Amino acid sequence: MIKVGILGYGNLGRGVEQAINMNDDMELFAVFTRRNPDSLKIKSETAKVLSVDGIENYKNDIDVLIICGGSATDLPEQTPKYVQTFNVVDSFDTHAKIPEHFASVDEMAKKSGKVGIISVGWDPGMFSLNRLYGNAILPNGKDYTFWGKGVSQGHSDAIRRIEGVVDAKQYTIPVDSALDAVRAGKNPELATREKHTRECFVVAADGADKAKIEQEIKTMPNYFADYDTTVHFITKEELDKNHSGIPHGGFVLRSGKTSDGVNHIVEYSLKLDSNPEFTASVLVAYARAAYKLNKERVSGCKTVFDIAPAYLSPKTNEELRATLL
Amino acid sequence: MIKVGILGYGNLGRGVEQAINMNDDMELFAVFTRRNPDSLKIKSETAKVLSVDGIENYKNDIDVLIICGGSATDLPEQTPKYVQTFNVVDSFDTHAKIPEHFASVDEMAKKSGKVGIISVGWDPGMFSLNRLYGNAILPNGKDYTFWGKGVSQGHSDAIRRIEGVVDAKQYTIPVDSALDAVRAGKNPELATREKHTRECFVVAADGADKAKIEQEIKTMPNYFADYDTTVHFITKEELDKNHSGIPHGGFVLRSGKTSDGVNHIVEYSLKLDSNPEFTASVLVAYARAAYKLNKERVSGCKTVFDIAPAYLSPKTNEELRATLL
Repeated sequence: MIKVGILGYGNLGRGVEQAINMNDDMELFAVFTRRNPDSLKIKSETAKVLSVDGIENYKNDIDVLIICGGSATDLPEQTPKYVQTFNVVDSFDTHAKIPEHFASVDEMAKKSGKVGIISVGWDPGMFSLNRLYGNAILPNGKDYTFWGKGVSQGHSDAIRRIEGVVDAKQYTIPVDSALDAVRAGKNPELATREKHTRECFVVAADGADKAKIEQEIKTMPNYFADYDTTVHFITKEELDKNHSGIPHGGFVLRSGKTSDGVNHIVEYSLKLDSNPEFTASVLVAYARAAYKLNKERVSGCKTVFDIAPAYLSPKTNEELRATLL
Repeated sequence: MIKVGILGYGNLGRGVEQAINMNDDMELFAVFTRRNPDSLKIKSETAKVLSVDGIENYKNDIDVLIICGGSATDLPEQTPKYVQTFNVVDSFDTHAKIPEHFASVDEMAKKSGKVGIISVGWDPGMFSLNRLYGNAILPNGKDYTFWGKGVSQGHSDAIRRIEGVVDAKQYTIPVDSALDAVRAGKNPELATREKHTRECFVVAADGADKAKIEQEIKTMPNYFADYDTTVHFITKEELDKNHSGIPHGGFVLRSGKTSDGVNHIVEYSLKLDSNPEFTASVLVAYARAAYKLNKERVSGCKTVFDIAPAYLSPKTNEELRATLL
C-alpha cells in the first residue's frame, strides 16, 4: 500500500481524500492542517487529523505528501519546504511562474533525494500533455486551447469585490463557431473575444445600482473588458440552487498538415462535473508515480512532461501491454 | 541532426519520408528496400536508395531505423533482427501478439544495447496512451474506443476476394447515438452492432450477380456478420474519383465518477485525412525518443507507455516548461 498524506483540507484536499479511496493500492495516513486539528472533521475513519507543525515526525509513515494549497502564496513556500522530507505532488498553476517554482523545488529535492512533481492537474497537467504530444507529432500546425463551460473562481471573486454585490458566479464559455472553425481545419487567428464569452450570475444588495454594477463588470480590465460579457441579476436562493457546483472543462486541439492539402485534427476534451475532484484524481495518479520513481532512486523536480505514462497506473507493465496497448 | 533510415517504401515509408522533412532536427540518410534499389524513386534528393542486404554496413550512418513493414509477417522478423544493429521503431499493430513481439525485440535489444520502440502509431499508440491516462485518473469508470469514419484496409481486401468483385473500399463508421450516450455519462453496455456500422463501395464485374455479392458481404463471419452493413455498387471511375483517399480516425472516451453523482468525461479524438501519413508522423516523434533514450544508455524494448512525453519533442525541458506546460 502507498501511504499518502494530505496537506490542506479545502475543496482540493477533500477531493484527494475521495480519490485515494478509489485506488486499491493507496491509503490515507493523515490530513495535516494549519488549523486546530480538533476543529477538523474528515471523512476517512481510519486516518488521523494532525497539525502541520511537527509533520516531519511522520517521515516514515508517509510515502507521498499531496500538497493542496493555493498557488499564490502557499505552494511557492510549501512545496520546496516539504520536499526536504517527503516525496510531494502539487497543483501549482501560475503558468508564468512555473520555471521559478521548478527551480526552487528541484534544488531542495536533489538535496533530500526525494521526488517533487509540480503543476499536476488538467491545465497545467493533462492539457499540457496534449499540447506537447500534438506539437511533437504535427510540427507543422497550430495549437488551440479553449476553457469551459465552467466556473472561474478568480472571475467570480473579482465580481464579488464590486460595491453592492452580495455574491456572484462567473462561467467561462468557449465560442462554438470558433471551435467549429478549428475542427474544420481552417486554422483561424482568434482574438481573445472570439474564443470565449463570459456569463455572470450576480446577487445584488437591496437598493444597489444594478446598471452601475453591470457596467463595472463589463469594463473591468484583464477580467472582462476584452470579452463579450452577459450579466444576469438573480436572487441568493437562485444562486445557491442553480449555481452551487464547480463544473469545468475545455478543449485542446492541434491542427496540422503532413503534406500539401493533407490535414489532421487532434482533439482532447474534458467535461468535468467537479473541477477540484478531477484535479485531485490527477494528483493521486501522479502521487503513485512519485512513489514508484523514488523507489527507483530518482530524485528532483518533475512535471507531467518528465513522467512515462506507465508510472501512473497500478498495473504492471506486462498487464498494461496486454490490456491497454 | 538525427540521421534516420527507412526500411520499406510503401504508403507508410513515404509518409515517414515526408514527416522527417517537417522536423528540423532530423535528416533522412537512406531508404532501404528489398526490391532492386534502381527501380525505386524517392522524393528526397539528398538521401540514398539502398538494398536492405548489407544494411549493417551503415551502422554508423544511422541513428534510428524506422521499420515500415506489415505486422503479419514483416515486423515479427524484421524488428528483432535489425535491433541487433540499430535503434528501431515499428508500428506493429496486431494487439493480441504484442506481448510476444515485445519479448523477442526486448531480448535482442538488451543484447545489442539498442532501443526498440514497438507498436507506435495511433491504435496502438496515441489511443493506447489515452486509455492508460484515463484509467489511471478515473479508476472508477468505463473505457470506450470507437473507430472511424475511415477506410479499413482489411475489410476492403476481404470484399475484393469475393467472386465477381473488381475493386472495393470499406468505411468503418461509429454510431452517433452510441457516442452521444457515452458523452452523456450513461455508461452504456454496447454490443458490436451498436458501436459501428460498415459501408461498402463495390465495383462488380460485368454480368456479376450483385445480389449474391451483397449477400456474401453481409454474411461474412468476423468481418461483416455482426454489423449493420450497407453495400453500394458503383463504377470503377466513381471509386477512383471519390474513394481514393485513406482517411481514418476515431474516439477514445473515459467516463468515470469521483464521488456519488459526480461524473467526468475525457474524450480524445482524431480526424485524419491520411491514416499512413499520421501514423508516420507518430513514428518519427518516437524515433527522436529512441535516439535520446539510447544517448542516455537506455536499451531494451519500449512502448509508448514507457516513454516520458518530453522525449518526443525537439525542445529542451526548460523550453517545454516555459511554453507548453
